[in-house]
Formats: sequence, C-alpha cells, structure tokens
Amino acid sequence: MKYSSFVAADGSATWGIVDDGTAYDLGPTGKNLATTLRAAVEQGIFGTVTADQYQEAPSRPETDIEFLPAITDPGKIICIGVNYKAHQEESGKTGQTAPTVFTRFADTQMGHLAPAVMPRSTTKFDYEGEMALVIGKEAWHVAEEDAWDYIAGYGAYNDFSVRDWQKAASQWIPGKNFPGTGGFGPYLVPAEDLGSTDALTLETRVNGETRQKASVADLYFTIPQLISYVTGFTRLSPGDVIVTGTPGGVGLFWGEGGLLSAGDVVEVEITGLGTLRNTVELEQ
Amino acid sequence: MKYSSFVAADGSATWGIVDDGTAYDLGPTGKNLATTLRAAVEQGIFGTVTADQYQEAPSRPETDIEFLPAITDPGKIICIGVNYKAHQEESGKTGQTAPTVFTRFADTQMGHLAPAVMPRSTTKFDYEGEMALVIGKEAWHVAEEDAWDYIAGYGAYNDFSVRDWQKAASQWIPGKNFPGTGGFGPYLVPAEDLGSTDALTLETRVNGETRQKASVADLYFTIPQLISYVTGFTRLSPGDVIVTGTPGGVGLFWGEGGLLSAGDVVEVEITGLGTLRNTVELEQ
Repeated sequence: MKYSSFVAADGSATWGIVDDGTAYDLGPTGKNLATTLRAAVEQGIFGTVTADQYQEAPSRPETDIEFLPAITDPGKIICIGVNYKAHQEESGKTGQTAPTVFTRFADTQMGHLAPAVMPRSTTKFDYEGEMALVIGKEAWHVAEEDAWDYIAGYGAYNDFSVRDWQKAASQWIPGKNFPGTGGFGPYLVPAEDLGSTDALTLETRVNGETRQKASVADLYFTIPQLISYVTGFTRLSPGDVIVTGTPGGVGLFWGEGGLLSAGDVVEVEITGLGTLRNTVELEQ
Repeated sequence: MKYSSFVAADGSATWGIVDDGTAYDLGPTGKNLATTLRAAVEQGIFGTVTADQYQEAPSRPETDIEFLPAITDPGKIICIGVNYKAHQEESGKTGQTAPTVFTRFADTQMGHLAPAVMPRSTTKFDYEGEMALVIGKEAWHVAEEDAWDYIAGYGAYNDFSVRDWQKAASQWIPGKNFPGTGGFGPYLVPAEDLGSTDALTLETRVNGETRQKASVADLYFTIPQLISYVTGFTRLSPGDVIVTGTPGGVGLFWGEGGLLSAGDVVEVEITGLGTLRNTVELEQ
C-alpha cells in the first residue's frame, strides 16, 4: 500500500492512499482517519487501512494531486552521510567507525514534482538519492536486534546539497538546510508491505541519465545499526525520519557537468517505493 | 528586565519576570499575557511589560521556582562552533572563512539549576559557556547592517558536549544532542535593556575555578555576520535561538582533570544576563 501527503481540492493539506492511479483522501478533507500522515503513524492507523475503508473515501486521479513531503512535519530529520562504500571512496572518506550524522529542518522539505530550489548564492547544487525510513514508535537506546520493530515505513528521498555552503566550514548544516532541498516521496510504504530492504535497488537519474545505482543491501552501517546509534543519543518519536545515506555517483565527483542547473530533472527511484521527481528551479 | 520560563505552582509551565528576587507569573497560571515566553516574543509582548503590569501578577520568591530553558520550545537552535580566537587556537581550527554551524534539538535543553546529564556512554563530558541570542521577527536574507533589529534578547547558554560522540565522525550532531545538555537561562534579557554586547564578559567556572573568560567583543564572526550568514540559508522565526560560540578554555584542552564528572558544578556568568548553574549528574 502506498500512503501519501498531498494538497486537498480546497487547498489545505491532507493525506491518503494512492492505489492504481487514484488518490483516496483519508485526511481532514476526506475520511478524516487522522489529521496528518504523521498523526496516522502516531495513532497506529498507518499501515492498517483496508481496501474497504479507503475505497469509499473521496478520491481524485493521482495525476491531479499536488504531492507534499511524505511526512510534512517530522519532529526530527536525521541524515546519514557517506554510508555507501562507493560514495566513501569517491569522497575520500573511508574507514568510518561510526555513522556520520547531520540534520535537516522540516521546512527544507518538498514533495514529489515540486521544484528543487537552487539558491542564487551557489554554483554547486547537487543531488543525493537516498532511502528514508520513518519511525513508528518512541525509540530510545534501541538494541540492533529490536530495531526493525521501530520502523513504520519507507520512502524515497533526495538530499539536495548546496556543496559550497556545505563545505565552507567543517560542519555541513548550511549546505543541507536551504528551503526546497529535501525531496521526500511520493509515497510512504509500510514496512510490512515492502519486505526486505536488502532486495531494493536505488537509482538516481538526471535528465534520464543514470548517475547512482546501488543495492540498499550495500549500506555501510545497516539500518539496525543506524537506529541503534541514533537512539543512543536522541529520543525518536513516531514520524521522525532517518535518511540513510547516498550511494556513489553524486554530481560533485561525476566530472564535467555533474552538478545541477535550472531545468534539470532529477529522479530517485527505489524498488517498491516509486519514483521521486523534482525539477531544478533557480530561487526566485 | 529579566524574563524567565519556569514551572508554575501547579506544576505546569509558565513564564514571567524576575525582579529583585521575586518571580512574577505572566503566563497561563498568572496574568496570562501569552502562553509561553516564545509566544510573548512572537506577539511583541516580550520587552514591553511595565512594572505596573507585572507587579500585580501572582508571584513567588525566585528561590522557590524551578527554572525551565529560557525558551522552552524554539523552532530552531543554531549553534556556532569555534568562534573565539582562543578556542580556534586551542582546537587547531584557525583560518575560518565562514561560520561553523551545527544544530541542537529543543529536547536537549534544560533550565538553570537543572542537572546537566552526563550520558553513561561517554568518558568525555565537557562544558562550553556561550552567549545565546533569541530572534524577534521573521528573518530571511538579512543584511549585516540590519541584523541588530532582528534580536529580541540574550541569555547565557551552556553547550555541554559529549566529546567522544562529537568526534566519532566528521559531523558533531551526536555529541551535541543528548538530553539534558543544553543549559539556557536563567534569564532572557531584552536587547534594548542590555546595551552593547561588546561590553559583556563571559565567564565559565567549574567548582568555582574559572575555566573560560572572554569579552563578547572577541567573537570571531560578529553577531551581525552570524545573523546574516544563517539567514542566508534558513528562515528564522521569533523564538529561534543562535548560540554564538565558546571562548578558549574548554575541558578537552584544559589538561588533567579538565573534563567533567558527576557532582561538578558548572556556572556560566555573563554581564547583565545572570549566572546559569548546572550540576553534572550521571544518566539514570
């Protein structure tokens, strides 16, 4: 089942299920099972909605809806850096003994088909295709062997990066927190529907050209290791997001023409999670 | 005037003014001028309350109140690293061309006199006395010459740091985001009441021994430069906090016995902003 956050017909924010090209409204403007997709996760509604339930909800064609970030209002967005071997090698950051952790503010996010906003203050705008997971319950000091139980679902993420601001000092926060740079969606798929993440392939394309392609099984720190490490220092809550890292092939190390320009179409496709598409637009 | 957030007699959170040893309740359990100190900043009430107004509010002796973080619920806490020359030199990080920016989650904060919680997973718990400023209005792409207009007030901050987690990888987020490590208060003082920040002295003491002592005028990137830089990549809102950096003399570079242990009393005193005192307590 594919859950999404999107704009309702009246312009307000809602959420629902997208099935076979139809978006069913389960939020405030529809069946009102919960106010937001995050609330649906908190309340244990996410992942439990049956076909009988959603098929009677108000619906529109999927092509008519405006997607929002899969979770519009996560309390915490935890991003993991250099977590695939090929990206460690291209960036010269091998020999990691602990995950590299940074954060995004929720107001950096945008949905599927929304513009990726290239700031006027950069000449180095880049993509990073990643798989994101959403936490399902309060999580603190979680053991690796219990970690899978804390995951509500998964979605595609594009951690668009402003490289000059990222590397202006030792800490990356500025380059990772411009508005319109955290693409998340189109869908959030319940963990139990997806099966093993090791079977998933992540592919990032720029104007149709494949730039990144990796098996999610190649994550350097595994999903249980990440959840255990992160909850070793901060409490996570339902709806919090961990963005698990990007494979090799980012624009910065691609060579001539690797970085992004206005008009470039960037897609992140992950098996079972759909394709996140954002077109680069220069900041107004 | 000194504003504070604190626990009301009935155990709920409130805020008010502390004057001459008396805490006047201006929040929901008192005069109810605004729900929180952040809301008072947003609504332009902060800094405008007159003696006539607060002296008629319910009050208790200051020694009877339990302080909360000066702003309990900032949307963004932006921290600046290595921003005094002496700390740049002791840490070997000279030649900065841009501010070093990292973040804290709001749930890392605690108030004056609350324990600083030393995690069981560290052997390297440290203090960083700093001056924090609170943003007064929506701020985006602010020019340096306009920056002072965006500051509502100032308070003392202790950016307690878990050095082993901070330095386990290139990004510092884990070591800066344990619960009970962001001391903020006791007071938030309106900018217009404080006068020039260049005249302020910041001093950090551990068990009475002076470890850090600097003029705020020694900030490497000035307050206007910080506001301009930060609003160059992220929108700030009323109640958001910028923690401006720590001087030389942190425990890590102090030598033998520099780092903190359970029972250590750490004070950050800044001219006009009072003394923030937290005692180190081992995580339960």
